[in-house]
Amino acid sequence: MELLKQRILKDGQVIGNDILKVDSFLNHQMDVQLFNEMGKEFYRLFAHKKVTKILTIESSGIGIACIAAQYFNVPVVFAKKTEARNLDADTYLAEVYSFTKGKTYNVRVSKKYINSRDVVLIIDDFLANGKAALGLADIAEQAGAEVAGIGIAIEKGFQNGGRLLRERGLEVQSLAIVEGMQDGVITFR
Amino acid sequence: MELLKQRILKDGQVIGNDILKVDSFLNHQMDVQLFNEMGKEFYRLFAHKKVTKILTIESSGIGIACIAAQYFNVPVVFAKKTEARNLDADTYLAEVYSFTKGKTYNVRVSKKYINSRDVVLIIDDFLANGKAALGLADIAEQAGAEVAGIGIAIEKGFQNGGRLLRERGLEVQSLAIVEGMQDGVITFR
Repeated sequence: MELLKQRILKDGQVIGNDILKVDSFLNHQMDVQLFNEMGKEFYRLFAHKKVTKILTIESSGIGIACIAAQYFNVPVVFAKKTEARNLDADTYLAEVYSFTKGKTYNVRVSKKYINSRDVVLIIDDFLANGKAALGLADIAEQAGAEVAGIGIAIEKGFQNGGRLLRERGLEVQSLAIVEGMQDGVITFR
Repeated sequence: MELLKQRILKDGQVIGNDILKVDSFLNHQMDVQLFNEMGKEFYRLFAHKKVTKILTIESSGIGIACIAAQYFNVPVVFAKKTEARNLDADTYLAEVYSFTKGKTYNVRVSKKYINSRDVVLIIDDFLANGKAALGLADIAEQAGAEVAGIGIAIEKGFQNGGRLLRERGLEVQSLAIVEGMQDGVITFR
């Protein structure tokens, strides 16, 4: 998606060889106009799949998922990272390793909100090692739901998450795939 | 807001005397159509304040804030609860006590994304003891920004957050104020 790539080139910051900071428009400050263009693009890519629900993970995926959901006209469910007092006891559980936080944690979705009649589109802001998306796909499969695919804003093509997910037969559509960030220069696939 | 009140009566679950579960439409599964009606209402209430930025806190506020931001045509900034490796070192910091999680934690906003020219509308899903909203107002004030007001989906009128914020001179607009939940019966102010 050209608009997103241009925005990454304009406002993205490379730190070292593996961190791409896009927090001025994607995952701290959020440019909702850009999110709308991304939502339209996800709809163009996945409209034929008859999606019934969008599944994401707190926190950075929620904004993109909600804006995209307006085009699909379906609810969003976000997997929770913490055990809040008001979360149902009866949940689907997956283990996820966070690249940015350097730790493993459990994510949970109440069994009430995904079921075997659902066609689930997974949306997230980043795809790096693929652990978050795999955890969400795992939860959808535990529920007996069909996974329509995985819609990602920015994929780090030099990490192995995209390959892992595609090898598992999942349709991954990334709006921008960063192939390299050598010496602070971002190149796209 | 009648539509939200009716939805709370239809789908809200009261647990004990103080927990109101609305996770089927507000903060786990999210009804984005309802969020759009809420966003329009926040715009009606705060349009005259010339808002330049919406400030919320991860995670449940993000969806509502992003949908509302479309009416205001401004970016959303969400305060982060954790120290991610990719968060700026230079942040505004506030301490927040979470009622649902039973603990105190720090929230941070990068100094890049709020400044003294901003007119900040704070949006969150719940107002109970008011600690999250106070923390966000504190961050806006540290930045020298003007606080346009606080837009809340559901205020628990029987807890003291709303009173604390209003006594501090902040304009609080809650789309539904729950006055009581005795014996599982929800009453509104």
